[in-house]
Amino acid sequence: MLLMVPGPTNVPPRIMEALLKPIINHRGPEFHELYRGLLENLRYAFQTKNDVFPITCSGTGGVEFAVGNVVSRGDKVIVPVSGLFGERLREEIVRFGGIPIEIKSEWGSTCTVEDVKAVLDVEKDVKAVAIVYNETSTGVTLRDLPKIGELTKKHDILLIVDAVSALLGDYLPVDEWNIDVCVAGSQKCFACPPGLAMVSVSEKAYEAAEKNRFRPFYHDLLMWREFKQKLETPFTPVIPLYYALDESLKMLKEEGLENRIRRHKVCSEAFYKAFEEMGLSIVAQEKFRSNTVIVPYLPAGIDDQKFRKILREKHRVVVAGGTGKLRGKTFRIGNMGMVSKPEVLRTVKGIVKTLEELGYNSKLKSKELILKVEEILSQL
Amino acid sequence: MLLMVPGPTNVPPRIMEALLKPIINHRGPEFHELYRGLLENLRYAFQTKNDVFPITCSGTGGVEFAVGNVVSRGDKVIVPVSGLFGERLREEIVRFGGIPIEIKSEWGSTCTVEDVKAVLDVEKDVKAVAIVYNETSTGVTLRDLPKIGELTKKHDILLIVDAVSALLGDYLPVDEWNIDVCVAGSQKCFACPPGLAMVSVSEKAYEAAEKNRFRPFYHDLLMWREFKQKLETPFTPVIPLYYALDESLKMLKEEGLENRIRRHKVCSEAFYKAFEEMGLSIVAQEKFRSNTVIVPYLPAGIDDQKFRKILREKHRVVVAGGTGKLRGKTFRIGNMGMVSKPEVLRTVKGIVKTLEELGYNSKLKSKELILKVEEILSQL
Repeated sequence: MLLMVPGPTNVPPRIMEALLKPIINHRGPEFHELYRGLLENLRYAFQTKNDVFPITCSGTGGVEFAVGNVVSRGDKVIVPVSGLFGERLREEIVRFGGIPIEIKSEWGSTCTVEDVKAVLDVEKDVKAVAIVYNETSTGVTLRDLPKIGELTKKHDILLIVDAVSALLGDYLPVDEWNIDVCVAGSQKCFACPPGLAMVSVSEKAYEAAEKNRFRPFYHDLLMWREFKQKLETPFTPVIPLYYALDESLKMLKEEGLENRIRRHKVCSEAFYKAFEEMGLSIVAQEKFRSNTVIVPYLPAGIDDQKFRKILREKHRVVVAGGTGKLRGKTFRIGNMGMVSKPEVLRTVKGIVKTLEELGYNSKLKSKELILKVEEILSQL
Repeated sequence: MLLMVPGPTNVPPRIMEALLKPIINHRGPEFHELYRGLLENLRYAFQTKNDVFPITCSGTGGVEFAVGNVVSRGDKVIVPVSGLFGERLREEIVRFGGIPIEIKSEWGSTCTVEDVKAVLDVEKDVKAVAIVYNETSTGVTLRDLPKIGELTKKHDILLIVDAVSALLGDYLPVDEWNIDVCVAGSQKCFACPPGLAMVSVSEKAYEAAEKNRFRPFYHDLLMWREFKQKLETPFTPVIPLYYALDESLKMLKEEGLENRIRRHKVCSEAFYKAFEEMGLSIVAQEKFRSNTVIVPYLPAGIDDQKFRKILREKHRVVVAGGTGKLRGKTFRIGNMGMVSKPEVLRTVKGIVKTLEELGYNSKLKSKELILKVEEILSQL
């Protein structure tokens, strides 16, 4: 079965096997060595000099860590919302007593630096801008993020980025773009099993946490900093996933970060080309298209449940259904992790055949379509 | 290397191998099947008809789930404290805006039902009693828990129990003892790797959560209940650990809960006998002694670091150091999970030899001591 949902993704055998390494005392010397390596290699993945902590929770748990430490009661936070994960981010701000200043866009679109600037020109005392970089419900990437980073730096406010479904699959240099808190997830482009969120933390974010009397406990950033001194975590971490992440980061360094990102880019181009030739339109506007989550509309008259059932049972490819207001109208492909030529081709072929079986014929004949996809993939 | 710390514990091959099962979509049919089995078998482990949720976090994260959903701003909570984990529980209450009413006891002792009753006679509007059943820093079990459960039932207030280091290792029938929220940890007597907290939730606890406007988001109990309807979790769970827990629960049913608890009891008796014959005193008063965490004082003049280093490097047994105010004066044995005759004997022999090498001689000669320990273990 080929898993092409937007996380969890297929995990290569090298990483799976790392799960079997011996369970160790998380207060002992072997752990210190493991943790030292993780802290160092995570800096490479995030392109940062900041601390990056691997936390035992889901991606949403990582976003909670990010928001809960720096956003306190009464803090104003600008938050663009154009999909389900933007809504979640907004809700996290509310739960910690923050006041979200929402910038709404249509699903398929997203906000620009001008939108953020317009709010900052009017609102006083904004504490932070919190952004979903890659919206997994719509396949939209907020391409103005680096410009927004310049803006938050100029205004001396915090920039929080949910990059759970993007980091390693798209360009995201944390320090160069002035990101104070950046969240990634193990089960996305790291090609690990789910279970870890990785969060980077700038000095400015530490200062905000120090002033925040209402920090969460399990997710208390200052405890993570304190325990780092002895190369330990405040609470018992999910050790098998630490081993998996360690292996994943070694594989990342072998491949090289630039190559990893380029591979995702090329594969996404192949997918977009395939859907164009099938005649399926894409939810995301072209300029905002994601490298990692591809969300096409289903052709008129094609039933979502039947489509995914045939694709899954007959062609052994699992894609995700649409979510939120796009449920039943779209499907979603996770183009993440170890994805390469064979995965893309198998997925595209499966989709073409499934649609044919349901009575829908692509614009191009399937052989010609595959040739076009292969041409793009030949860049790999 | 034999891991005898109070979690993580040694994980049997059957459970380790379960980590390798295929990564699946957590919104698909295979996951529904896995989750259905977990929910059913967790009820057996907790002896409850209530929901029990496996949450991706450490034991402390599970305690946060418990406290955060039912304790809200201004709520008075009675909390006995006689060790590090009691202090943590108290701190969790504070972080969620609750008002802890602390019952302090000496480390090595714990509170009684009379202590709790005395507070309830004076304090009005108490919302809950929150208890660490087994204090991992001191090896003390709060033996009056069932009586306290009768009391909280009578007063119609909530009973929250941190049983992270006890559940399956000691008797703890959740429904019979009127426990509203009970927390366990995967890396303790379940013999799984760390990464999951399991939390049971009564109807009364659900009602409290419904009234609580300030519930956490990642740990939002009401989302867990809502997603349970479709046999899913609100956020991506740590799938390899779900497989491990599934296998662990199957092994539990094969062994039988009563046998599992009895095995822990017999092994702990063997340890206590061994330390008595060595001439080492135990932190816990005899009537409060834990089945799962054994905390002896080091003999005068024995250096903690040297002791654990020799035990570890020469005899290949890892025990934990003392913690909090007992650091350097005690060591801690985790008697958990798959522990049985060979593990107990190897640990006892290693400790006897290490102490001898450091110039301390046990009261009994080592051969006679081992015979006495073996006699107890012959009950298994």
